[in-house]
Amino acid sequence: MGDEGGKVRLAAVGLGRWGRVMAAAYHRSDVIELRSCFSRNPERRGRFAADFGCDEVSSLEELCARDDIEGLVVTVPNDQHAPVIEAAARAGKHVYVEKPVAVTTVDLRRIGDAVRGSGVVFACGHSARRLAGVREMRRMLDSGEIGTPSMVEAVFSNERGLELKDGDWRGDPAQCPGGPLTQLGIHQIDNLNFLFGTPARVSAVGRPGAVAVANTMVAAALLEFEGGVIGYLGADWLTPGAFTMDLYCTAARLRYELDFSWWSNSADTDAHTRLVKVEIGANSSDPDDRVLRESVLALAPRDHLREEVEEYARAIRGQDEVEVGLDVSVSNVAVVLAAARAIGERRSVEVAEVLAELGA
Amino acid sequence: MGDEGGKVRLAAVGLGRWGRVMAAAYHRSDVIELRSCFSRNPERRGRFAADFGCDEVSSLEELCARDDIEGLVVTVPNDQHAPVIEAAARAGKHVYVEKPVAVTTVDLRRIGDAVRGSGVVFACGHSARRLAGVREMRRMLDSGEIGTPSMVEAVFSNERGLELKDGDWRGDPAQCPGGPLTQLGIHQIDNLNFLFGTPARVSAVGRPGAVAVANTMVAAALLEFEGGVIGYLGADWLTPGAFTMDLYCTAARLRYELDFSWWSNSADTDAHTRLVKVEIGANSSDPDDRVLRESVLALAPRDHLREEVEEYARAIRGQDEVEVGLDVSVSNVAVVLAAARAIGERRSVEVAEVLAELGA
Repeated sequence: MGDEGGKVRLAAVGLGRWGRVMAAAYHRSDVIELRSCFSRNPERRGRFAADFGCDEVSSLEELCARDDIEGLVVTVPNDQHAPVIEAAARAGKHVYVEKPVAVTTVDLRRIGDAVRGSGVVFACGHSARRLAGVREMRRMLDSGEIGTPSMVEAVFSNERGLELKDGDWRGDPAQCPGGPLTQLGIHQIDNLNFLFGTPARVSAVGRPGAVAVANTMVAAALLEFEGGVIGYLGADWLTPGAFTMDLYCTAARLRYELDFSWWSNSADTDAHTRLVKVEIGANSSDPDDRVLRESVLALAPRDHLREEVEEYARAIRGQDEVEVGLDVSVSNVAVVLAAARAIGERRSVEVAEVLAELGA
Repeated sequence: MGDEGGKVRLAAVGLGRWGRVMAAAYHRSDVIELRSCFSRNPERRGRFAADFGCDEVSSLEELCARDDIEGLVVTVPNDQHAPVIEAAARAGKHVYVEKPVAVTTVDLRRIGDAVRGSGVVFACGHSARRLAGVREMRRMLDSGEIGTPSMVEAVFSNERGLELKDGDWRGDPAQCPGGPLTQLGIHQIDNLNFLFGTPARVSAVGRPGAVAVANTMVAAALLEFEGGVIGYLGADWLTPGAFTMDLYCTAARLRYELDFSWWSNSADTDAHTRLVKVEIGANSSDPDDRVLRESVLALAPRDHLREEVEEYARAIRGQDEVEVGLDVSVSNVAVVLAAARAIGERRSVEVAEVLAELGA
């Protein structure tokens, strides 16, 4: 895998909107050198190479054959994740892949087979758990300072379902199960996984609502976590952007809000978030005399996308471990699939039922 | 029923904490005269009579026999609603009763039989729908200015489950089905009824969590409304007070927050609420270039408890109609019972199934 000194040499595969957002976040990292890029679209890769100061190749095979490339950052469409990961793993290239890792049983099994035992580092992009407010919620849970958690709510919405055209892959339940659950909700599913692990059971309702496509556009799910915490997940593609979490504990409740306008500017996202703590400020034996106190908590800004790719890069050199690898990323998809099944079959679904089908 | 001029003469029945909160709200009303009161507890009724400037009686029969009393304001424990309402209706006395109207099939049928065809005005206390922010949400829905609704979330929590003692009626699933659903959630169920009607179907999960009682302490429900709106209801008795609603529409989303410290001071509650609108402030064909705009909406303060009892008083004189009468109050309880059943039987429950059992 080349020398162990210097920057970790990565190549971008898939150079669309998100590939560029990612590159903007990591290409100036002290630990990463963005050395090459590939897209089937020559114009796109020429522009990417110029903008981010790397070379370009015209095939994935060429990239995989290069000795000077250690790992890939893959942001191709979801249904192309499996073949790209297989090719990379065969060539001994490490892989970072955007979420969702994949959404079909066939693809998830292919990816599992390709990655397990291959020796390559595998990371899946679930950067939202690195937002400063999410980290702080976890710290406060771990420290015990907010007491015992009872309930958690997480919502992710935006308006993009209102613009879907006939034939858009996001309108196809096979490619985008549960609609906004696959594209938006999975971020919050991972945040909930970060806080409380994989839920045991999912109940859900959903409905369409886009003009041109029949896929689910609004989905709501109840999640039962092993420790007894009850979770709610809302994912809505028909409304202006929302990214919120509410955490209810015995000693305090927390509300986290992120201004979705800043979602793609990962160095500035945290500066546009707010974590509020509500607790009983003045207590009394008479419940009517108790007074609540609300305080806005200070958050030290981070860079969720850059941190995530840097962790991947360090893991390539054996200096770190990937936080979201195969197991967590597949578990997150299993929750999406369980919710989509719960909507379709009008029953609650055990996540273990889905995981068993995925061979996970 | 006495003369039709002057103030409407009411008597308070049940003089505990909530009876006093209610009286504080309505006893200085221009349209109401609080003339008498009854509680089995002589000390309690003496203090109430002195504090609110009314006379007192030592039995419900005495109150019902008085010609100068037009209607009752009933805040006795839930399981005593039915006999009090039966006695009042037999005597031709109008009835305002605190929520929940009742929680058992037997009581709900008795109340329905007593009220229907009796000619008495019947009102159930669901004042939260009169909060200025809730009225404004409804106005904005009706006007179309926020577009088409897709999803609504409503949460009511407080810490009182943490203090429940063994033997407390709130710890008994028969007297308090679904725990905080009966005591807290029902307020939000009525708010959702005000905005979207009675849901068709309820899915729910819940769990205990109090030290001394086994009843549900945390409950979360998904509600499917006829128009296609998906609702979420959270009711949690193990965390500092929360009273929030989130409404997601195509042109904007709204967040409503109420400082629970001010719940019982109905003249000041609205001053401690906030309604925030989030919309796309700067649009673009590139979704990443869209900028959200958040604005705090002005709310003209009202007095939810006083308004509600004044409406009841005017209805007694035929000058108004009761907004929450028998049908809506029974429907609200049916949603609670459907959610409690969904929790117990691990299935979604049609509200019509419960309503049929209640004879409604």
